[in-house]
Order: sequence, then C-alpha cells, then structure tokens
Amino acid sequence: MGCMQSFRQCCDQPKNTNIRISLPAVCFVWQIAMIILFGIFIRYNGESDVHWKENNKLSNISTSDVENEFYFRYPSFQDVHVMVFVGFGFLMTFVKRYSFGAVGFNFLIAAFGLQWALLMQGWFHTLDPVDGKIKIGVESLINADFCAASCLIAYGAVLGKVSPVQLLVMTLFGVTLYSVDEYIILNLIHARDAGGSMVIHTFGAYYGLSISWMLYRPNLDKRLSCSVYHSDVFAMIGTLFLWMFWPSFNSAISYHGDGQHRAAINTYLSLAASVLTTVAMSSLFQKTGKLDMVHIQNSTLAGGVAVGTAAEFMLMPYGSLIVGFICGVISTFGYVYITPFLEKHMKIHDTCGINNLHAMPGVIGGIVGAVTAAAASEETYGKEGLINTFDFTGEWSNMVPSLQGAHQAAGLCVALCFGIGGGIIVGCILRMPIWGDAPDDQCFEDELYWEVPEDEESILPVVDYGNHMRNKAENDAHFSMEQSRN
Amino acid sequence: MGCMQSFRQCCDQPKNTNIRISLPAVCFVWQIAMIILFGIFIRYNGESDVHWKENNKLSNISTSDVENEFYFRYPSFQDVHVMVFVGFGFLMTFVKRYSFGAVGFNFLIAAFGLQWALLMQGWFHTLDPVDGKIKIGVESLINADFCAASCLIAYGAVLGKVSPVQLLVMTLFGVTLYSVDEYIILNLIHARDAGGSMVIHTFGAYYGLSISWMLYRPNLDKRLSCSVYHSDVFAMIGTLFLWMFWPSFNSAISYHGDGQHRAAINTYLSLAASVLTTVAMSSLFQKTGKLDMVHIQNSTLAGGVAVGTAAEFMLMPYGSLIVGFICGVISTFGYVYITPFLEKHMKIHDTCGINNLHAMPGVIGGIVGAVTAAAASEETYGKEGLINTFDFTGEWSNMVPSLQGAHQAAGLCVALCFGIGGGIIVGCILRMPIWGDAPDDQCFEDELYWEVPEDEESILPVVDYGNHMRNKAENDAHFSMEQSRN
Amino acid sequence: MGCMQSFRQCCDQPKNTNIRISLPAVCFVWQIAMIILFGIFIRYNGESDVHWKENNKLSNISTSDVENEFYFRYPSFQDVHVMVFVGFGFLMTFVKRYSFGAVGFNFLIAAFGLQWALLMQGWFHTLDPVDGKIKIGVESLINADFCAASCLIAYGAVLGKVSPVQLLVMTLFGVTLYSVDEYIILNLIHARDAGGSMVIHTFGAYYGLSISWMLYRPNLDKRLSCSVYHSDVFAMIGTLFLWMFWPSFNSAISYHGDGQHRAAINTYLSLAASVLTTVAMSSLFQKTGKLDMVHIQNSTLAGGVAVGTAAEFMLMPYGSLIVGFICGVISTFGYVYITPFLEKHMKIHDTCGINNLHAMPGVIGGIVGAVTAAAASEETYGKEGLINTFDFTGEWSNMVPSLQGAHQAAGLCVALCFGIGGGIIVGCILRMPIWGDAPDDQCFEDELYWEVPEDEESILPVVDYGNHMRNKAENDAHFSMEQSRN
Repeated sequence: MGCMQSFRQCCDQPKNTNIRISLPAVCFVWQIAMIILFGIFIRYNGESDVHWKENNKLSNISTSDVENEFYFRYPSFQDVHVMVFVGFGFLMTFVKRYSFGAVGFNFLIAAFGLQWALLMQGWFHTLDPVDGKIKIGVESLINADFCAASCLIAYGAVLGKVSPVQLLVMTLFGVTLYSVDEYIILNLIHARDAGGSMVIHTFGAYYGLSISWMLYRPNLDKRLSCSVYHSDVFAMIGTLFLWMFWPSFNSAISYHGDGQHRAAINTYLSLAASVLTTVAMSSLFQKTGKLDMVHIQNSTLAGGVAVGTAAEFMLMPYGSLIVGFICGVISTFGYVYITPFLEKHMKIHDTCGINNLHAMPGVIGGIVGAVTAAAASEETYGKEGLINTFDFTGEWSNMVPSLQGAHQAAGLCVALCFGIGGGIIVGCILRMPIWGDAPDDQCFEDELYWEVPEDEESILPVVDYGNHMRNKAENDAHFSMEQSRN
Repeated sequence: MGCMQSFRQCCDQPKNTNIRISLPAVCFVWQIAMIILFGIFIRYNGESDVHWKENNKLSNISTSDVENEFYFRYPSFQDVHVMVFVGFGFLMTFVKRYSFGAVGFNFLIAAFGLQWALLMQGWFHTLDPVDGKIKIGVESLINADFCAASCLIAYGAVLGKVSPVQLLVMTLFGVTLYSVDEYIILNLIHARDAGGSMVIHTFGAYYGLSISWMLYRPNLDKRLSCSVYHSDVFAMIGTLFLWMFWPSFNSAISYHGDGQHRAAINTYLSLAASVLTTVAMSSLFQKTGKLDMVHIQNSTLAGGVAVGTAAEFMLMPYGSLIVGFICGVISTFGYVYITPFLEKHMKIHDTCGINNLHAMPGVIGGIVGAVTAAAASEETYGKEGLINTFDFTGEWSNMVPSLQGAHQAAGLCVALCFGIGGGIIVGCILRMPIWGDAPDDQCFEDELYWEVPEDEESILPVVDYGNHMRNKAENDAHFSMEQSRN
Repeated sequence: MGCMQSFRQCCDQPKNTNIRISLPAVCFVWQIAMIILFGIFIRYNGESDVHWKENNKLSNISTSDVENEFYFRYPSFQDVHVMVFVGFGFLMTFVKRYSFGAVGFNFLIAAFGLQWALLMQGWFHTLDPVDGKIKIGVESLINADFCAASCLIAYGAVLGKVSPVQLLVMTLFGVTLYSVDEYIILNLIHARDAGGSMVIHTFGAYYGLSISWMLYRPNLDKRLSCSVYHSDVFAMIGTLFLWMFWPSFNSAISYHGDGQHRAAINTYLSLAASVLTTVAMSSLFQKTGKLDMVHIQNSTLAGGVAVGTAAEFMLMPYGSLIVGFICGVISTFGYVYITPFLEKHMKIHDTCGINNLHAMPGVIGGIVGAVTAAAASEETYGKEGLINTFDFTGEWSNMVPSLQGAHQAAGLCVALCFGIGGGIIVGCILRMPIWGDAPDDQCFEDELYWEVPEDEESILPVVDYGNHMRNKAENDAHFSMEQSRN
C-alpha cells in the first residue's frame, strides 16, 4: 500500500481538461474498429437469419412462428434496456449540477460497452466452430446489456470525478474483464448466475470501488455532490424503473417457461421486502424519524441484486422475502455507517454508494445462491427439474447439488478477485495525467465537459429587464421578508 | 352526522409528528409477519414450479414452452407495474413541496400492500384445497398490483395530509376490504370486472373520499397544495405512463387471445376520445381559452377507468369512443365545479381530485358494464363467445345476459358500500391522535417526514460569487426565523 | 417564390390568440364525427372479435391461443406507444418555458391523429370487401401510432410558434396526406418500409419544414427557445425512451419470427454507433471539446431513423453500424451548420432541428433501403427468404431485387413530394389569420395557451413569511423592471 501511495503522488500533476482531441479520437477510432471487427466476425444467428423458416422445414421441425426465441425474450430485453439507459442513468442524476454527466456519460459508456461486449462475449460463448463467426440473437443483446450494466455500476463509484475519456477506458477494460470473468464462472466453474449477483454486481461494484480507491482525491469537497429537491425527484425516475423492471433483469436469460416465471416472482417479492426494511431503517437512523432520499433511492433495490443468482432456483416466496428483508437492512446501514467509514479510513470515496447497493448485496446474493444450490434436493426439484435448473448435462452430468454449492462459492471468489484486481490495475492506468480529468474544485460540475445553459431565466419572470435592477429588487424582497418576520 | 362531528372534535389534540418509533415498528413487525405467513401459506403454482415440464409430460399435455402463462401475461404485468409505481407516484408529484411524499409514500404503500394482497387474494381465490397452500403465478402478481392500485387511488384524496403510519394502516385495511369486496363481486355475485372499474376504481375512490371526509381539516390552507412549473412537468410523466399502459391494465387478466386483444383496443380508443373532450372542456372553462394542467393530467385518463368493466365485452370501437367522450367531459366538469362543491358543502377535501378521475368514471364504468352485459346477444357473441366472455359455466351455466346485467349493477352497489362504509370506519381509526400526522400549517410539506436538501444553490448563478456573503445572508435569514418563532 | 412572399405578407395581421371558441369547437365536432364514422365503418378484426376461437374451430385451424396476433405485436405496440407519447413529448420539453406546450400539445395531436389514422389507413388497407367495414386489430393500432408520429415530427419544426388549433389542422391534413402517401408507396409502388424511414420520417420532416417555411417569422427572437438546466434533463427522458424503444418501432410490423428479430438487432446496433459518433462530433465542434446537449438529445437517434427501411433486410450487423456511424456524423454536422444555414438563407426556422434528426437521416434510410434491396441475392436470402422479405407474391411475383431497388428509390421520391408539396399547401391554410397563433414576442411561451403556476415560491425559503409582504416586494420588483426598460 505504501507503493500505491507513492504511485498516486507521482501522477498528481496540473490538470488539462481539454478533451477536444482525445474524446473524438477515441470514439471515432473505436467505432471504426467495431465496424471492421463486426464485419469480420458477427453474423445473425439461426433465429434471426432470413433462412430460419426454410431451415426449420428442412430439419422437419414444425414450429410455430411464436416459438422464435425473439418472443420468449424480447419483452424482457426491452425492460433490461430501460434499466441500463434510464434506470442507471437517472439514478445518478441526484447530484445537483452533474445531471448531464450522469445521464449523458451513462448513455455514452453503455452504447460503447455493449458493442465491445457483443464481440467479447461472442468469442467466448457463441462462436460458430464451422465458419468462425459469432452468431447473435436477442439473448446476445441481453448479455451485452448486462455487461454494460456492470460498467455502469462501476461508474457509480467515480461519478463526477473522472473525464469521459477515462470512462471509456474504464469501460473498455471493464467489458474485457467481465467477459473473461463470466466465462470462468459460468463455463469453467459451472456456477449458475441468471441474474448476475456475482458476475454483474459483485464484479462491477468491486471494480468500481478499486478504481475509486486508486483515484482517491484527499481534498475533495463532498458538499459538491449533494442533491437539490428536483434532482432527487429525477433520481427517483431511475430508482423506480430499476425497481419495477428488476424481475425482467433476473428472468431475462433464465430457462423458458417455469424458469423465467419463477425468477420474476422471486425478484418481485424480494424487492417488495427491501422497500419496507429500507424505510424502517432510514427512519430509525434519524432523530425525528425522517426518511432520507438517498436510502429510498438505493437501498430499496438491494433485494433485487441479492436475489439474482438464486432467482431461478426453488428459493420459495418466503425465502425471497427473507433475502429482501436482510438486504434492505444491511444496505441502509451501509449508507449510514460504512460509506463514511470507507471514505475516512480506507480512502475510498463512493459517490453513489455502490458498496451498499451492489457490492454487499451482490456478495450476499452469491452466498444465497451457493446455499440454495447446496440445499437443492430431488424431492424439491424432481429429477428432471434438478438437471434443468442446474444444467447437470454433458460433462457436468455427475454433479450433485452439494458440490454445485461449492462451485457457486468458488464463482463468487473469482468475481471478487477479478473486480478488485482488475480495478487496481485499471485504476493505475487511469491515474496517468493524460485523460483530462477534473481538478478537485470542479468535480461534480457539468460546466467542465458540457455546454450548460444559463439558469436564471427559469426562475425569474421571462422578460429582459435590467439585470442589475433585478438583483436589487430581489434583495429588497428578502429584506422585507426579514422585516415581516420580526 | 352530528355524532361524526363530535367524534372528530374529541380526537383533535396537539400533534406529535415524530414517527421514529411507530414507522420502523410497523414496517419491521409487518415484514416479519409477512415472512412467517408466506412461509406457511405461499408456494409456486403449477406454471412457475420447477415440476411444470415434468407434470405436463405425465399428464400427456404436449405443450410448447411459450404456452406457459408467463408469456401471455408478463408484458402486461410489467406495464401494470409501471402504472402502479411510476404512474400513480409521479401523477401526485404536482404539489410543489410534496414530491418526495408523493412518489416515496406511493412506493412504500404499494410495496406493503402487494404482499398483503397476495395473501388475502390467495385465501379467497387460489387456495389449493389439497395441501392448504396458496399457489401464486404471474396472474397473482397482477392482481396484487391491482389491489395496491386501489389503495393508491385512495391515497390521492388524502395526499399531503396524513403521516406514513396512517398510510400503512389505511393500506392494511384497504387491502383487506378490497379482497373481501372482490370476492363478493366476482365470485358470489358473479359480476365480470376485468379492468376493475368497480372493484378497483369505485371502491378505491370512495374509500379514499370517505377517509378524507373523516379527516377533514377546516382550517387547511389549500394554497399549499398548488403546483410549480417543474412539478407539473413531473406529474405529466405519471399521466402519460398511466395513459399509455392503460390498455395493458384493462387487458391484463382478460381471457387469452381475442379477450385480451379486444380489451386493449377498446381502452386505447376510449382514452383517445377522453383527451379531446378534456382539452375542449378545459379550454371552454377559461376566459381566454387557456388549458389547465390539472385537467390534462387527470381527466384525460377518465376514459380508461370507465371502460374497465366492459373492455373485454363487444363494446364496439364506437362504443369505446362514446364512453371516453362522456368521461372526459364529466371529469373536467368535476374539477371545475364538483371538487370545490365537495370541499365547501360536504367537507371533503380531495387533494388529487380522485372523485373526478376515479369515483365518477368508475361508477360510469360499472353502469356501462351492466348495460353492455344486459344487451349481449348470441347474435353478436356467438354461443361459445357468450359463455366464454361472461363465464357462464359451472353453477352459472343457466345465466342469461339480461340477468348478468343485473348482477353487474349489484356488483357496483357492493363496491360503493364497501368503499364508503369501509372508509368511514377506517377514517375513525385514523383520527386517533397516535399516528403522527401533520398540523394544518405543515400539510403538503415534505420537511416533516423527509430530509429535504437545501434548494437555493440550484437557483443562484453557478459562478463562484462571494460564497461567504451568500452564506452570511442565509444565516441571517435563518437567525431571524429562529427569532420569530420564539 | 415571389408570390409566396406576397401571400405571406397579406396574411400578417394583428393576432387574436383567444382560442376559447375555436379549440373546443374543433375538438367536439371532430370527436363527434369520429364516433359517427367509427360507428359506420370500424369493427373488430378476426383476431380481436369474440368469434375468433369458434371460427378457428370451424376452419379446422388447430391454433394455440398464443398465436393470436396480439402476442406477436402487443409488446412492440406498447413500446411504440411510449415513443409517441413520452418520447416525442418529452424530447421537446427542452424549451425553457414551453414544456407544457411540448408535452401537452404532443398528447393532444397524437390522440387526435390516431383516430383519424385508423379510419384513413383502414379505408386504404383493411377494408373488408364483403361488408364494407374496416377491421382493426393490434397492427392497426401500431400503424395509427406510426401515422401520428409523422405529424409529431412535423410539430418539431413549428414548436412554440403555432396555436393548438393550427396543430389540429396540421394533423388533420398530415394524417390524410400520410395515408395516401403510404398507400402509393407501399401498395402501388410496392416499396418496403417497415420502420418508415420514407413513409414516416422523410414525409413527416419535409411536411413540417415546408410548413415552417410558409409560417416564417422574420423577427422572431430565437433566444426564447433556448433551454435551462432542468428542461434539458426532462428532454433526456424523451431521448432515452425513443432510443431504447426504437428497435421495437422498426420491428413492430415486420414479419413474424426472424423478420422482427433481425429488425430489432439491426436497429439496436445502428443506434449504438450513432451515440459514439454524435459524441465525437459534438466534442470536435467546441473549442474545449465540451459536449452540447442538443446533439446528445437528438443526433444519437439518427441511426434509428436511417435504418428504418432496411431493418428487416439482411443489412448485416456491420452494415447497421456503418449506417449509424454516418448518421451520427451528418446529424450533428447538421445542428452545427445546416440549421443556421436554413434559418438564414432559406427562411426555414426549425425549432427542434427535425431536418437533422428526421429529414436527412430519413432520406439516407430510403437510399440505404434501395441499395440493400437492389443488392439482395438468392445466395444471401434463399429463394423463400427473398420472396418473404420483399413480398414477391401475387402480382409482384415476377419482381427481382434490382428492380425492387428502383421501386424503393421511387418510393423515396414520392415521400419527398408529398412532404414538400403537402407542407406548402397546408402552410398556406395555416397562414390564415383565424387560428389564434402567437405574436412574435410570445412564441415559446406557455403563458399564452396554459394556466401557468407562479414559480417563485419554489425558490424562496419555504417558511411562512408574511404573504402580503412578499407580494408587495414582488410588485416592487416588477415595477423596477418596467422602469429599467424605459
């Protein structure tokens, strides 16, 4: 840690925040690279290719049009899409003068990340051995959105303190790490993780927290990151769309039929329980029982994170409620005590509190998944159900639930290692003084990277009076108020 | 009414608005109770249980995965979910300093109510006689959301005047009454009510209005509940998501196939007609023809309420337009004349005007349903269609349309009685001086139950003017306020 | 053009902005006409009629309930519905004091337009020759929304400069022209246009631009149409819902199965590419590389417009990226250079920049469609695929791809002619001094057509200072403003 410290200091040099060369260059070069790589590698898969019906006939599959994978997953895909772009984007608009950055950079890095994710995940998962092409369909789009989501989670830790170029670099490495991590956890270790408690949330959150630790700014004025009334209402748009569509997130890539059905029910219940315990805890921590918007905006979602891995298992409705109950409590507790602790003693500043919303609930989710898997019995699942749910097929046909539980736990450890290790390495890269990040006193301030409209006119009558006179009148008004109160 | 009056007075005592004990206690106790009850009673149903495929094979049902109930109803469920949390939540954000309460308490009581609804509705409708368990699936989630919606409608009448603890009590009783009411109307009386004009809207609205009557505050300053420019735009988010997804609301639990299809079309048309007549009436009631945001936000939705019962019937496209036409007119008229009348002469203060949006259109919807049912003929519906649409099966196989019409009318009466009667009783309970409600001069004010961020910085020019001076002025202001209170 | 000029001048007379007679009259008369016409002409189609199951049995079609058209298209319909009402509505809220008009009039003209569209499109496309009735189902609703969308695009050009009555007239003619235009392009010319690059975007945009040209106001102060911080965040709600749901827009009426699947994938990719090149260009055009919200709000969507026609073709994933790449660049370039050019040299004021978001990308989309169609080969599509994708059936069974390309190009020309020609004619009508449009100095100002709440209270400290004194101070302020102007 001493060496980290010195590395940090050597990188602290005067800031050049002009990104007129670097940002366009990265975007253009990257987009051109994507076009070339997509041209070489990416094709439609069997269900999105124009030969679908012809091939079905040739194979003597008499299938209805409605059995195209599209109809199983497209509504869930759209919900996930809303979570990624509106949910994560608006959740971060709470910072009073960083709403453009929250929703705009969220937009940028999601659109950037999903393209790279289609390639990376394609190479690992859907590469056709015959023609060497990646075949994509609606499930690929969902997975690409998931991968982008993990980078957006990481963004939450560094919100307001990094430049868009840094975000793109962070996303580039994040997607790469995610894809390797996911391949190891799901394919090599054979852990199950339909809702991504480990793969998406644990990885993404520790990746972001580690980067934030590497980029620690000791002199940052945190008051700049506080909210105003309207920005808190905007953030609730993000909260609610995340909350409502989380059942789709956790069920989007589950098995057809009862798998997706059950995942949606479990998530729905867990989230409902989170809301009640979050409200209870938030009220309990204030002298007069007032609620804190930060908790309502974030901790209510913890139940969805924590039920991710086990959502498709036979967690049982009451099991889901218990998970949600615990996570609402822990997450709110985290906002009150752990975030300040991390800031003060660990030098980790976590703008959106992703430690409370994604990291801790993600780890809990991994543990719940491991326990639920280990406890699975043929009595509960049936013979076929056990095989389907845990995919005990092919080389894994000899697996038993207790061993599966151990594999789940191993998967969690891998996610932690990739998150923390990857974050430290990428954090080092991001400390280089070439990325155009903001000086301490201009953090959480859109002015730096955005053309910001002047705001006064929204308030005062929309006429072009002499500005000087207005201020005088305003002062008079304030003065007379003062008077009237005495 | 005299005794009501005196009961009211005896309950008026000095207010203690500290909810630090009561709110967490209710939330924790209730959530723990839910976990226990869910553990005892609630299990997955046949289509969400892991044995689904195995059971289908055993029963020799060769079914495609896509015929799982999930795929019939999940997209509609998600739309209903958005209506409940974003729709109702944001619709009430119009009050200038009560947006946190609108969207936050809406969130709380919906998450609270839907859990209790799953149990209550389960006991009445989906209790498995073999093992004594409630079996839930996606349709149960929709019904739970519907039940929560009726309590959110009631919340609209008392918005800004009650404490969160009162809201939870109100929701607890509301869900209970709803479930009994629903059982009587749908099962005992055998009325049809797919979109809930009677069960959801009529009941919910009269429940809320009766409570508001019991909690009448004669000295309330209504100017506190007015809007500002931005809060009206936030409210339009609620309006539009309600408006757009209403076809899903009315078709969510209709019969598969043409039933859902027709319900969506009828609702779509009725809502479109409401928009035009609302605009016309709103403009007509102002001297210079200006439109009033209150009408646009609310009355445009009346068509969706009123077409609820009859949406799955052969109402015909022009019939839907007529319903929407009438409701847009009546609802806007209600905002202009009936709301002030209720306030002045009936001592019912209705913050959101639910009388105009839910009560009157709900009753109209019940009547439209009764008339349409009574007018149903085998010529229009076909033999099979008549049986399917009105469920003339089992013990009801001898029903005829004209009698069905009478049953529909009886259902409407039951909904009215439950709403008014239940509201008066619950209103009595809520008048007890233990719930921490606000004094008159702090109604419609988030300060009381929420940590509210300071707002001035969002307003003042975002340049670093002498920060010192501003803060000084601010402190002075605060100081003089302190003085004035002593 | 000289005669246009003189026609313009002769219509410029003092403005009467009272719409208390005209607006209600148009709404009521029109809605009653709709009821009558719907009564005469519109019935449920085979899949939404109550006889659906009975008829299937009679025809010996053993179909599952889930094969009702409803389940193929309803989720996409709802996404399109959100785009039309929230997407277009909120995208235009950026004008600082015209948010009510943006979202409210958008609501009005969409609800108005879709009813007329159901009739017009019904006469052209789904008139049952047996009974002379129009048969509607979910696909009709999607098409009606599409038609309304083209009028909302046109609204973007004249936002803030026209009265609601003018908007209704514009929509009435717009829907009529659209339906004829669509019939010629799709049926007579047999061009394919699933996502409506030509039919919706090219037509709508040139229609709007021509009207804006006819209504040119030489003395308009454009500063009134600028944004404030919060209004830009509201506009991002519109942007994101449009961006996210565009894959549903382009796939909503494609062929079942692989057609819808492929259209969604292509649109998803094209939009992602647009985001990166928009950001790159926006940053490149500012001295210090700052991003401009106008570009992010609009140009990121250009890829969705341009991929509309070709979305269901075998455009290939890299092809979609190329289209998105080009459109992001051209659209942002348009905002920087072409919009001011049109304003200065062509006397076309384009409030929302629809030339950059819809007109140019729409034309590109038409060209991409023509080229892709012309390049289609049996090798890529397969024999059956070619027939299905381009509908080479019936009288068109002798078509070949190269000829289809020419037909696509012809379709584009027709859309341009209808847009420009129709816009000029309708613009003439709208110049008549009877429609209640705003004087130049009250454009972009909600005050004129809306009851606007006072805003100051949201700003000043929320304490109950003497209300009387505040108003006095306010009056003083207004007074001194008046003074300063003289």
